[in-house]
Amino acid sequence: MNLKHSTILTILCLGIQNFLIAQENIATKLGYSPDAKLLIIHADDLGVSHSENMASLRAIAEGSVNSASVMMPTPWVTEVTEYAKANPDTHDFGLHLTLSSELKNYKWGPVASANEVPSLLNEYGFFHEACRTDLNLEEVEKEMKAQIEQAYSMGLSPTHFDTHMGCLVQTEELREVYLKMGQQYQIPVFVLNQFISQEQKDQYDVRVVVDEMYTMQPDDFNSGVADYYTKVLQGLKPGLSLILIHTAYDNEEMKGMTVDHPLWGNVWRQKDYDFFTSEACKTLLEESDIKLVTWRQLKEAYYD
Amino acid sequence: MNLKHSTILTILCLGIQNFLIAQENIATKLGYSPDAKLLIIHADDLGVSHSENMASLRAIAEGSVNSASVMMPTPWVTEVTEYAKANPDTHDFGLHLTLSSELKNYKWGPVASANEVPSLLNEYGFFHEACRTDLNLEEVEKEMKAQIEQAYSMGLSPTHFDTHMGCLVQTEELREVYLKMGQQYQIPVFVLNQFISQEQKDQYDVRVVVDEMYTMQPDDFNSGVADYYTKVLQGLKPGLSLILIHTAYDNEEMKGMTVDHPLWGNVWRQKDYDFFTSEACKTLLEESDIKLVTWRQLKEAYYD
Repeated sequence: MNLKHSTILTILCLGIQNFLIAQENIATKLGYSPDAKLLIIHADDLGVSHSENMASLRAIAEGSVNSASVMMPTPWVTEVTEYAKANPDTHDFGLHLTLSSELKNYKWGPVASANEVPSLLNEYGFFHEACRTDLNLEEVEKEMKAQIEQAYSMGLSPTHFDTHMGCLVQTEELREVYLKMGQQYQIPVFVLNQFISQEQKDQYDVRVVVDEMYTMQPDDFNSGVADYYTKVLQGLKPGLSLILIHTAYDNEEMKGMTVDHPLWGNVWRQKDYDFFTSEACKTLLEESDIKLVTWRQLKEAYYD
Repeated sequence: MNLKHSTILTILCLGIQNFLIAQENIATKLGYSPDAKLLIIHADDLGVSHSENMASLRAIAEGSVNSASVMMPTPWVTEVTEYAKANPDTHDFGLHLTLSSELKNYKWGPVASANEVPSLLNEYGFFHEACRTDLNLEEVEKEMKAQIEQAYSMGLSPTHFDTHMGCLVQTEELREVYLKMGQQYQIPVFVLNQFISQEQKDQYDVRVVVDEMYTMQPDDFNSGVADYYTKVLQGLKPGLSLILIHTAYDNEEMKGMTVDHPLWGNVWRQKDYDFFTSEACKTLLEESDIKLVTWRQLKEAYYD
């Protein structure tokens, strides 16, 4: 080994060491070695349909999914809150804070009174179809609080917050509302390390961040769902990672719900369900020495 | 024949004659003989689910159902209004004015702003589960108008109004709001002749009433759905009759929706669909010389 190689090796080792020190707290706080590969397998969109609820609860009970988030304004939310009440300590349900109603023939509106959040709504009183950046921020905050308070009043104590379709991270101002919710309710907010400054962490009391997030994109879907997730699991790095998925049964309800919406549609969600309830997935998690952790564990370790 | 028998016969004939004269207008106005048996086969609850929508639209297109009413506050209403816009002259859709959200895990709330109609809502902002008689009447009227205006704004011109679960006919005061809606929007309201006085007809400008209404009850369901409807069709009297049904496919969505709600549940609605899309039903209608008429025809004859 010449000097040049030795120097590169030293730099590399220092880099890895720094990385492990940075991550040390989370892994060791949860009882793992500092270089553990921690993973949350997270199902979005609970509440949106009976199919989504049934498939997701089953993927949690029998498959490898270990966390989920709930859309309070959606029609089937009571099915989830009733489940949460019946299983108060075992579920890991956060709130999928919602500002959009993106499906063609199946719609929902705000939890707050419509006349208090007009900028969030279209002419029929439903949320806008896409994320918008021209929303009144006070109204956004009012609606987010209404969704959070509704969860508590319906018997669901959220373990974390995240954002449906990423609407709450579209602008710096929206992201501030998002982080503020975590701070006010003392609940971890899903945010990627690379997108938050130390200053923001301090300002909004953000105590835990995710290192890497993986979520299937159309190209991955087209080239093979199992292939994509296999590569993600085999390539998982030490630190805290999160895989975002959408688990539902491809039935008539989902076909109608996602009509003209093939991306993240009925077939897509069935394939997510299939992979994350497969034996192949369980074997991969074991072979890759991946430690599944929940937002509940993170909340208890960092906030409670 | 002795005098007594002759007198009875005369009285009977006079009775029938009076009945026919009373009905003469409707039947003849629609181009039928005065003693015609007019029938509306009416599917309730459109908008409530994808299954209900798909089954009802098919039962209208291919079966014997010829009219329906739509619940504006329900999640799938856009699927119906889009259909109505695409078929502006052929559908016969009224509004199933809604004041309740009766299912266990699947809920809806008002079209008006929640803070403007608090007496109509439970602690979570959904309509109450059952019909209530202690509602604020101004709020009821506000919500009914909001539902009606929402229909027009979404491209649906209702052909009639009726009342989900009969909530709007639970008290005299609620019934007045109901009749007032028909008067204000110049749209026929489904009301039975026996339950409305001439004074009320005059006061609220009620120009057309239904003579007989048939809707399956639990005993009929248990003793045989096809038997029940066969008897109804075979026994239909001259005048304007209406059969209220609920057509949906018995699939996962409906099973979840009507969980713990076997009456008017998934099996019930599939059986309604089966009978009213059967060849047996078509044959019975023909053999019994029943004339299917729509609310649209009645609206055009009496209000336009």
